[in-house]
Amino acid sequence: MMKAWGITEFGPATNLKVVDAKKPTPGDRDLLVKMSAVATNPIDYKIRSGAIPSQIVEVGIQGWDGSGTVQEVGAKVQRFKVGDEVYFSGNVFRPGCHAEYCLVDERISAKKPAKLSHEDAAALPLTTLTAWEGLLEGFVLDPEAPNYDSKIAGKSVLFVGGAGGVGAIGIQLAKKVFKIPTVIATASRPETIDFCKKMGADHVIDHRKNLKEQLTALGFQGVNYLYNTVDANSNWKETVDCILPQGKLVVITGVDSIDCTQLWFKRISLFPEIMFSRPIFMGDTEDWAQYDILTKTAALVDEGVLVTTRTTTFDFAKLPDAHVYQESGKSIGKQVATVKF
Amino acid sequence: MMKAWGITEFGPATNLKVVDAKKPTPGDRDLLVKMSAVATNPIDYKIRSGAIPSQIVEVGIQGWDGSGTVQEVGAKVQRFKVGDEVYFSGNVFRPGCHAEYCLVDERISAKKPAKLSHEDAAALPLTTLTAWEGLLEGFVLDPEAPNYDSKIAGKSVLFVGGAGGVGAIGIQLAKKVFKIPTVIATASRPETIDFCKKMGADHVIDHRKNLKEQLTALGFQGVNYLYNTVDANSNWKETVDCILPQGKLVVITGVDSIDCTQLWFKRISLFPEIMFSRPIFMGDTEDWAQYDILTKTAALVDEGVLVTTRTTTFDFAKLPDAHVYQESGKSIGKQVATVKF
Repeated sequence: MMKAWGITEFGPATNLKVVDAKKPTPGDRDLLVKMSAVATNPIDYKIRSGAIPSQIVEVGIQGWDGSGTVQEVGAKVQRFKVGDEVYFSGNVFRPGCHAEYCLVDERISAKKPAKLSHEDAAALPLTTLTAWEGLLEGFVLDPEAPNYDSKIAGKSVLFVGGAGGVGAIGIQLAKKVFKIPTVIATASRPETIDFCKKMGADHVIDHRKNLKEQLTALGFQGVNYLYNTVDANSNWKETVDCILPQGKLVVITGVDSIDCTQLWFKRISLFPEIMFSRPIFMGDTEDWAQYDILTKTAALVDEGVLVTTRTTTFDFAKLPDAHVYQESGKSIGKQVATVKF
Repeated sequence: MMKAWGITEFGPATNLKVVDAKKPTPGDRDLLVKMSAVATNPIDYKIRSGAIPSQIVEVGIQGWDGSGTVQEVGAKVQRFKVGDEVYFSGNVFRPGCHAEYCLVDERISAKKPAKLSHEDAAALPLTTLTAWEGLLEGFVLDPEAPNYDSKIAGKSVLFVGGAGGVGAIGIQLAKKVFKIPTVIATASRPETIDFCKKMGADHVIDHRKNLKEQLTALGFQGVNYLYNTVDANSNWKETVDCILPQGKLVVITGVDSIDCTQLWFKRISLFPEIMFSRPIFMGDTEDWAQYDILTKTAALVDEGVLVTTRTTTFDFAKLPDAHVYQESGKSIGKQVATVKF
């Protein structure tokens, strides 16, 4: 048996309870990971509240972002062994990792950065996958492709919501890995503005004021790439207005009943990013894309190119409070906890 | 002076009149083309009726697809000379080519296929640009990229509305240039089904019946790429249902008030293609993308890889009837006319 944070029905943060659950047994491609640290994300409260359809498996173990140590491997696991320290986000259609133990498919796991603590590592997987997939596939940018330097010359990206978890690592990736010459972020408070600059933003503009006018004041008629890390329904028209013709838009929420005709004459592509899509739909394919991203990220962290986005460590016994904090929309960077029941 | 088909206000096909207009003078990057043949497209009636905002320049010369001979070149033209036979679609924000003469920017023109008549050549530019840009940038397929064969292995595309102008060349390009292994098209009448097969479709399914069920019956759980050549508002849910996770959708109409949340969990990108976007927004950049596509197309036609999509030649004096025929939605391939006033 093991302890875990679970829910038995969708609802408010008070529905979260520490429960006793059966310690799981790995399937063929699974790692059984003893969790050391976990992180919270907006997806946590969206699933807990029932806003996003999930599967309640037995007692509904929550949370999908963490770092720990491999304790068992499934019969067909190829790239991991017992004792490996790993970090991963996982699959929302399987039980989460806010627990003593968790199963995760090896194809969506990676060895954690050697130089980081489990806490600093736990901050990274979900948001790094979200940001990297959006840059690579949403903006169609491949820094390893021939002539990449000339393709990216003069280009600009705007992260709307720069100080959140995805923004924090997205700014770093855009600047240091995808080498976009101009990286702009939005933030509205002194502490979030500072944080965006610390992550590497060249300019920070205020999402409480007109975005296009602020870009113009900085000398930009618009941006080539816009990464909207907040609810895309809430600022649709204003964000699309900021994108140059032939530009690209990545969103990380569903967008309902919006007018995409605005995209048409400017020929702006819309890419809805959700890093759980691959784990949910990959089936028995040999799709190691998320393993690759997390493995590259670990190397870049160990080389000092990227830094953890952890800003806060909370008491794991107070996980419901951490959910409420996520719901406030005010969180900066990432909140992590040491796993301890 | 010259003759041209023009409108003085948006409205029905009867608004189209043969008018006298000033023979235009080329700007720096322009070719002055004496038109030999032109084609009709749905954009014609959409602009004529006022459904799409355009600019009415003087007498509002209509039509954007044709073939002719360069009679003058602008002061800074680099790649064309007087006497060149060219084909092009042009720019809807400038006067059209359903006229004795037309100006077109050299960067969006190309030498016509040598082996084709002006009539057969006039059938191609607008639809080829639309299909090629959608395949290249919307589906992110580059047949010249390294390891393209392994990237495209096992992939499938569905053209909704396979027998129209864009479908007719899109099927050919998908099969012969972009080498997508499985090309499926929709059509509902015996003559349109035959036409799709003639263009190279591997399978034809009926858009009057459930698309997903027909794909399943053919042994496909869905397609990787879906090119919707008809009004994307009219069949949004049904077409998105046909796309596999991590798939890509190209549409060629605006999409208003649709629920893009359907795209999200499957992580399907939406690319709104309109070939006029580049000409409208390219400004003074050296963007030769449309020149390149039309030049490659001419070579592929002359090599016998691609064939013209012309199916009908109409009397240019009856252009209003050709607009009405376009509006019926029943047209097969392309309708062209010899320019004669």
